[in-house]
This record gives sequence, structure tokens and C-alpha cells, in this order.
Amino acid sequence: MKAVCLLSGGLDSSTCLGVARRDGFQCYALSFDYGQRHKIELQAAASIAWHFGVREHKVIQIDLRAFGGSALTADIAVPKDSLEQGTQGIPITYVPARNTIFLSYAMAWAEVLECSDIFIGVNAIDYSGYPDCRPEFIAAFEHLANLATKAGVEGRTLLRIHTPLAQLDKAGIVKLALDVGVDFGLTHSCYDPDREGHPCGHCDSCLLRQKGFREAGLVDPLEYQ
Amino acid sequence: MKAVCLLSGGLDSSTCLGVARRDGFQCYALSFDYGQRHKIELQAAASIAWHFGVREHKVIQIDLRAFGGSALTADIAVPKDSLEQGTQGIPITYVPARNTIFLSYAMAWAEVLECSDIFIGVNAIDYSGYPDCRPEFIAAFEHLANLATKAGVEGRTLLRIHTPLAQLDKAGIVKLALDVGVDFGLTHSCYDPDREGHPCGHCDSCLLRQKGFREAGLVDPLEYQ
Repeated sequence: MKAVCLLSGGLDSSTCLGVARRDGFQCYALSFDYGQRHKIELQAAASIAWHFGVREHKVIQIDLRAFGGSALTADIAVPKDSLEQGTQGIPITYVPARNTIFLSYAMAWAEVLECSDIFIGVNAIDYSGYPDCRPEFIAAFEHLANLATKAGVEGRTLLRIHTPLAQLDKAGIVKLALDVGVDFGLTHSCYDPDREGHPCGHCDSCLLRQKGFREAGLVDPLEYQ
Repeated sequence: MKAVCLLSGGLDSSTCLGVARRDGFQCYALSFDYGQRHKIELQAAASIAWHFGVREHKVIQIDLRAFGGSALTADIAVPKDSLEQGTQGIPITYVPARNTIFLSYAMAWAEVLECSDIFIGVNAIDYSGYPDCRPEFIAAFEHLANLATKAGVEGRTLLRIHTPLAQLDKAGIVKLALDVGVDFGLTHSCYDPDREGHPCGHCDSCLLRQKGFREAGLVDPLEYQ
């Protein structure tokens, strides 16, 4: 059984890929070079893909910078040390339509592979501020996908979007990662690493990761700046 | 009032843009360089965008060839003179997930522009074989978009997908194009033009266009090979 697995190289998507492999899927990993500031994550994605023995790893170039509007792709400062203050509303690191675009490409590949399973590492707890991480969004995409594809129209196998992390907080993800054999040292989470790829330790993503390891009672092997 | 208008440079999307302009929208035209065989259509899109005085015309590079699977992007021959035989099922010129990907980008731009209207020139009559041209698909995308975006989550203006050609056949589109001021000579429909951009006159798209002009009682100004 084949599955297309969205893989950023971060802890969440790596764990998600590990779950897909544990559940017996032949995995096809899909990453995006979308002008992100933290391009080092693509190297992490390649290492994780190799670590989990995926059948194929594709990196698709897409230009989300063309539209601007996010601290992850535009010249807007990545917020630091703000997690504890409780972020209100939607974070500035939100990239417009990112998950919709990512899932659309995953759907295209799944259609060509004749595969009916897509894995995405969204979680609704820590990222409740991102509209396109919520279960309602994923359900709506699944509905769309089954109207958009040949397989859907011809009544063959329907596409399922798997979100094994949906109900986990970061500590839960760290524990699951350990269970499914993620090599933590290969993963990369920071939104604003230095040139050597060392995580900053202060952006939302670093703070969440550190909190997750702390609560799970594990040590994060990454060297912070 | 702003609108993002998907514009391929073909007769349908050009007419759709003309309708948006007629209805008083400030238009932002969005085209894609997706490895199509018929790249000449991007020149047509630029001419049409200029003709209709759009505020901005963006051409986004995306690589749908990465997945293969369609006669429009892969090394599969474009079918010729097959329209009259009645194509069964989904045409080989169908590009997996194309409209889903196009609409996802349109949604991203609309979000950054703070605009709540997207125009797409799908028609359900002539392209009934393409799953992602059907009204159910468009409705599902609209539903998704309103869950995927900040504006949707924050309860601000909801996104609407306009499909003014949905219920028209090609002759109806030719007549509407005339009404809204499309310059037919600027549009390009062929899936398999020669190097100078002359349409082949034999692919599905050329056959449909010629039939449309014939039934509308108008002369197509394009020079066929």
C-alpha cells in the first residue's frame, strides 16, 4: 500500500512519516522549496527520508514569496520569545494557503501513483492559530479531493488524508516520535537558524520543541545557538 | 472591489476576465507556467491582461511535470480529430489536480490582497470529462477556502468563486466573449501549436473552438496551420 507523506524535515512531519512506515505503507515523501527562510529543513527532509527508506523523495519548487504576507517567506522579522505570552489569533508565521497548496500537490502525485493515502503532520493543539491545521479544514480537503480526481469521479478507491498527530501536543509528538523510530538529531524545527543550521532557540517553533522535550522527559540532541 | 482572475490566455479564461471587468472588479490576473506544451498561451495571457487593463498580472512557475500523467505536460501525444467520436470518460489531456493547485494559488493571492472574489473560466458542458471543472468541485473548493484562510476563520468577508461560464457551451462563450469585448485574435486555445504559435486545428481544444465559432455564426480570426 502506497502513501504520499508530506515531509518538511521538522519533528512533526518526520513523526508522521514514521507512523506511515510503522503502519506498513510504502512511503513517497514530498517536500517543498517554497522560499522559506529556514531552507536547511530541506536537508533535514532528505536525511529523514533516507532514514525511513522511502521509495522516492521529491522536492518541488514553488514560489510562495510571489504573494508575500508571511514572516516565513517575506522580510518580516520572525517573532522571538513570544510563546509564553500566549499568541492571540493567527501567527505572523502563517503562510497564506500553504497547506492547501501542499495538499494539492500531494493529491496530484497520489493520483499519478494510483495511491489513496496521504499523510500530513498537522496538529490542532499547538497550531490552533493556523486555520489550515484544523480538523474541519482537513475534512474539507478530503471531500474536495474526492471530487477533484479521476479516482473519485470513477468511484474507485477514495482518497484519505491521515493526520496521526491531530490530537497530540508537542510532548505527545516527542513520545510518538520515539516509538516510531525518529532520529531526533536529523530533524529540524527552527524558523530562523544560523548559517550552519543551528536552531535559534527563541522562535515559536524552537520554544514549542523545547517545551515538548521537557514535558516528555527527554533530551533534545540538537545544538542550539 | 478586487478580484483574482485565473487567466490561461485561452478563449474561456479571457471571456471570464472580461466578465469580471464588465462587472466592475479591479482585476488581478494569475497565470501559470506549468511546463505546458502550449507555452505560447502565456504570451496570449499577457496580451489579454494588457487588453483588459488589469492591475497586475502574475505568472507563477509551477512544475506539474514532476508528477507526469498528462498529455499536456508529459511525452504523451495530444489526441487529434477525436472530438466527433465522442470521448468517453476523462480525457488524456486532463492534468492531475491542476485546477485545485491553480485555485490554491489564487486563494493565497486573494488572501494577501484582502480580496474575496476569484474568477475561473471553467465550463461544465464542454469539459464534462474533467472532474475539476464540475460545479460540485467548485462548491467544495469554496467551502475549503473559507476554512483555510484567516478571513474565513475570523469571520470577515467570505471568499466566492465565480464561474460565469459554467452553464455555457462553446458557442455561448463565443457570444459572451463578443459582448464583454474579448479580442479574439489575442486568445490562444490550441494544445499543440507549431513553433510560430499557429493552432493545429485538430486537437480537442481547436475542434471545440471552431465548432463554437461556427455555431455562434462568427469567424475565428486565428490562422490555423
